[in-house]
Amino acid sequence: MKIFVIGGDGFCGWPTSLHLSDAGHDVTILDNLSRRQIDVLLEVQSLTPIAPLSTRLETWQKKTKKKIGFEFIDLANDYDKLRELLLKYKPDAIVHFAEQRAAPYSMKTPTTKRYTVNNNVNGTHNLLCALTETGLDTHIVHLGTMGVYGYGWSGSAPIPEGYLEVKVDTPEGEISREILHPANPGSVYHMTKTLDQLMFAFYTKNDNIRVTDLHQGIVWGTQTPQTELDEKLINRFDYDGDYGTVLNRFLMQAAIGYPLTVHGSGGQTRAFIHIRDTVRCIELAILNPPKKGEKPRIFNQVTETYRVKDLAKLISEKTHVPVDHLPNPRKEADENDLVVENDQFLALGLNPTTLSQGLLDEVQEITMKYVSRVDKSKIPASSQWTAAKEPAAAKTKK
Amino acid sequence: MKIFVIGGDGFCGWPTSLHLSDAGHDVTILDNLSRRQIDVLLEVQSLTPIAPLSTRLETWQKKTKKKIGFEFIDLANDYDKLRELLLKYKPDAIVHFAEQRAAPYSMKTPTTKRYTVNNNVNGTHNLLCALTETGLDTHIVHLGTMGVYGYGWSGSAPIPEGYLEVKVDTPEGEISREILHPANPGSVYHMTKTLDQLMFAFYTKNDNIRVTDLHQGIVWGTQTPQTELDEKLINRFDYDGDYGTVLNRFLMQAAIGYPLTVHGSGGQTRAFIHIRDTVRCIELAILNPPKKGEKPRIFNQVTETYRVKDLAKLISEKTHVPVDHLPNPRKEADENDLVVENDQFLALGLNPTTLSQGLLDEVQEITMKYVSRVDKSKIPASSQWTAAKEPAAAKTKK
Repeated sequence: MKIFVIGGDGFCGWPTSLHLSDAGHDVTILDNLSRRQIDVLLEVQSLTPIAPLSTRLETWQKKTKKKIGFEFIDLANDYDKLRELLLKYKPDAIVHFAEQRAAPYSMKTPTTKRYTVNNNVNGTHNLLCALTETGLDTHIVHLGTMGVYGYGWSGSAPIPEGYLEVKVDTPEGEISREILHPANPGSVYHMTKTLDQLMFAFYTKNDNIRVTDLHQGIVWGTQTPQTELDEKLINRFDYDGDYGTVLNRFLMQAAIGYPLTVHGSGGQTRAFIHIRDTVRCIELAILNPPKKGEKPRIFNQVTETYRVKDLAKLISEKTHVPVDHLPNPRKEADENDLVVENDQFLALGLNPTTLSQGLLDEVQEITMKYVSRVDKSKIPASSQWTAAKEPAAAKTKK
Repeated sequence: MKIFVIGGDGFCGWPTSLHLSDAGHDVTILDNLSRRQIDVLLEVQSLTPIAPLSTRLETWQKKTKKKIGFEFIDLANDYDKLRELLLKYKPDAIVHFAEQRAAPYSMKTPTTKRYTVNNNVNGTHNLLCALTETGLDTHIVHLGTMGVYGYGWSGSAPIPEGYLEVKVDTPEGEISREILHPANPGSVYHMTKTLDQLMFAFYTKNDNIRVTDLHQGIVWGTQTPQTELDEKLINRFDYDGDYGTVLNRFLMQAAIGYPLTVHGSGGQTRAFIHIRDTVRCIELAILNPPKKGEKPRIFNQVTETYRVKDLAKLISEKTHVPVDHLPNPRKEADENDLVVENDQFLALGLNPTTLSQGLLDEVQEITMKYVSRVDKSKIPASSQWTAAKEPAAAKTKK
């Protein structure tokens, strides 16, 4: 199949591009290298030494004799080029990773809030609009987030895959309706993914665009079989307070012997998935597209759930580094249950990598190996969710 | 009260500004004059001879000794100026009309679709972000639309004011939840108002911004007691296929003896409100703000509902012009019921003007009076909702 991976130079996009190329698909990466540019602005870098994109692509071709194309494009701001590329390549599927994806970054300043909204909404809308204009029957596979559901909306009831069955009282009696699960985003970033959902619903209904939306949990792990082929193919590992996930920051703290910082009680339950499973899920989604005229197909792309404090305990046990509690910079419940339905991907044959199996590899192959590259000052979270909260980062400074 | 009316030069914004000034509020209009600029691009003009904004403001001051201020700003693209104006004036309330508001225009071309999304989403988000940044406790009164609900979602059940009570089955038994009414927009324009709702929900929750969202029906009527004071204060009357509402186009067709064009069966039911009631509702909303930390307060700003064919019949009876049926360019149900709850405004003392009372004024004072200014070629609707549909406009050409 001919596939565009928009945002194919990023943390999920790069291993996805390699996995799809390895599986025999004709892959072209579209990217504006924004993730590397944000690194420059935040004065941080990936713990792993990622190669420039052209080196990555040359190395992949040398190692595998497979070619991945590249087109530089800013999806949110270059509509005409997008239309030209669509008409030139006529892709069968487009994997859409071209969104600013860090919740703390999206809450950092008015500028980053506004960038996140402008980039994510216009990028997604340009794609929908261009497919409508060109009349191509291309399947969009979009990376959503578990965060669209919010946490604790329905207590201990499992979160369904995108749609919720509800009953409503009417003068003629009770009626049943299937609705998009109510949105309860926890950051400007998560909010943009709830806006995406409504745009997908409209364009599938009005213009028969085919969309799959993958509500992904927190991705952990760094390498896939393809990125391991050569160090020049290595994937990003973010550990800074903005882009590093909770798990990566724990691993990094453990590597330098710094106490694992749990924000709040640590009773927040989150959903996780290994990057190896992410790339497989995306391929499964591409191979199982919705029909024309079908509403967006929504999958929960998660394999297990953990409480933050249990995650800290797991890593603490493996590394003998203690756990430390700090105020929570996010406006969220301190404790929540989280049960997530993920039957669709399991039915399609996904066989997940669990945290208890894979964590030691991360410690040995990534954080211990590259520990000399760490900038310790970048580990604490510095973005504040609201003006009223006390800065958590300030408290960690000596 | 100190009030900003953003979009205060437009069809609803202008009479709202005058009404609030007349009621003793200190009003400043913020506008980028985009509505007049779109007239230029569409090569149409208001049937009524609207004066330039500076003339309008001078006339108002001469007639009433009251002063309305003006600041030129593009809300979606000039964040820094917005922040400066907020800090300079510290308004108590902001009426937010600064969105592209025509459904047919929003579906006309990829450029108008993209303009509508970019302008409406970034404009609303800039306002929320700037109030968060400045820390002002300003109440936003936003013009939403009945179209966020879609038509026929729950059969003949009344559409509640913004929130819907639903029941969900869980392993522990049935639970009840109040949710934002599921969105089912019928155009890119309506879609942007559903995106606004989610942004309002997030910023009220995370930053305690105070928001009232008014889901308005189709506004009819042209004049208010204030715009009638002088012809230089006259309000817009749009009759073109993009910005003219169904009612205005019927009235215009009747004035020139052209058959009233009903698209489809005419069984589509829509909600209406007179412009005189719009401006009163907005003042009532300003005087009854939500508390800090309260979720968005949502009102249905409508006073009666009509089927399109009954509306045509009403005007046909008053004017003796026959009715003609044409294919529907919109992708929508041909027939729908519509019962709308509007108890909140009635409880606050709104005493509506009905179509059967007010229509003859429109015929005599507006369409017959200014009929010599009409450009007949602009009356048919030319925007197509989807690529597959046959152009309705083409069929009306000789």
